[in-house]
Amino acid sequence: MSTETTPLSSTPRTTLRRHRERGQTDRAALYEVLDAGLICHLGVVADGTPIVLPTAYGRAGDTLYLHGSSANGAFGAAGGQRICVTVTHMDGLVAARSVFSHSVNYRSAVIFGTATVVEDEDERREALRLITDHLIPGRWAAARQPTKKEMAATAVLSVPLTEASVKIRTGMPADEPEDYDLDVWAGVLPISVRFGSPEPDPKMSEEIPVPAHIRDLVE
Amino acid sequence: MSTETTPLSSTPRTTLRRHRERGQTDRAALYEVLDAGLICHLGVVADGTPIVLPTAYGRAGDTLYLHGSSANGAFGAAGGQRICVTVTHMDGLVAARSVFSHSVNYRSAVIFGTATVVEDEDERREALRLITDHLIPGRWAAARQPTKKEMAATAVLSVPLTEASVKIRTGMPADEPEDYDLDVWAGVLPISVRFGSPEPDPKMSEEIPVPAHIRDLVE
Repeated sequence: MSTETTPLSSTPRTTLRRHRERGQTDRAALYEVLDAGLICHLGVVADGTPIVLPTAYGRAGDTLYLHGSSANGAFGAAGGQRICVTVTHMDGLVAARSVFSHSVNYRSAVIFGTATVVEDEDERREALRLITDHLIPGRWAAARQPTKKEMAATAVLSVPLTEASVKIRTGMPADEPEDYDLDVWAGVLPISVRFGSPEPDPKMSEEIPVPAHIRDLVE
Repeated sequence: MSTETTPLSSTPRTTLRRHRERGQTDRAALYEVLDAGLICHLGVVADGTPIVLPTAYGRAGDTLYLHGSSANGAFGAAGGQRICVTVTHMDGLVAARSVFSHSVNYRSAVIFGTATVVEDEDERREALRLITDHLIPGRWAAARQPTKKEMAATAVLSVPLTEASVKIRTGMPADEPEDYDLDVWAGVLPISVRFGSPEPDPKMSEEIPVPAHIRDLVE
């Protein structure tokens, strides 16, 4: 396998910081990758060691919001620190004629920025709404709202979307010219992420129909 | 949403280092999470900043292998450093009666260790085979083998699987007792990752049938 199989060392690259003239297109691509994702991987440094945590997120314009437990040390340590947030979609396995040219079709956004612990209660609440509705649009309004105690138990971080790298690989393998005549099947195995049928909680006291915001997500 | 929605701050936890008596079970769970994954997120520190890169991996017993371009600075910087490798499976969205109790069903493995740049040519080659066959079992033997030049362009890192945390959440929402009578639909939206039908490279010179190792992956 090649450099191509390491998503971040290959393929069309977009660095918002480096290519300001591309800003508009890059930003649209960044929003698209972020908005289509379910979870991100948050990188923080604690005692010199990197920690990579999967977590939910939401976006409002050029601000990314993450949340975690107030009691989570690694999450709390991120406040005021330079962090990295990565969202990756795996779109396909690229089977080439040579092992070296094997690759992956993917879309990724790697964001760098200084994290801020959000203190304003209105912004915290709106951030939690965004994170909830990012995973299940319309869910926030449908569920019981947070109490003061629940709000206190939740830490919210914001990261500005000013420094980001969007990378996308699509299409067929890029084999060496001399390899195209080899008797090796080559192509792409597409990958998709799907929601299955909603599984109702057996503890529901009455029969409550599956709401539209859940049905919409599945369809 | 709650601490529960941050996968790493909730739910059954397994820390190999902390609970040696659980070793056997933990190790089986770790292998299962790793072997079922497609890519990992590698965390390294460069100039004090965390960098989180999506990348392919493979496993041989208690050694994890990663590969990247020899020219990739962040990847190269990992040699001799303490790094973090995280593999996450998203299994479902957990819609609770309160926004705070919303969660995610997932399986994750977070591995910490000092990365070693593998120098031995036989081990490097075996590592690349493991990484290739991790994504598409049987693919290595079916494709053109790497040249010396291709081997030189590839860097391989190894990380020992001695310090890892496996976390798994399954099942229905865990709502507050007083919320169970609310008129809010609650349950799980299962998530699955699927391979679609193989898409053959239109540049194949002759009609080559889809090989068994590709068909096996789709079925």
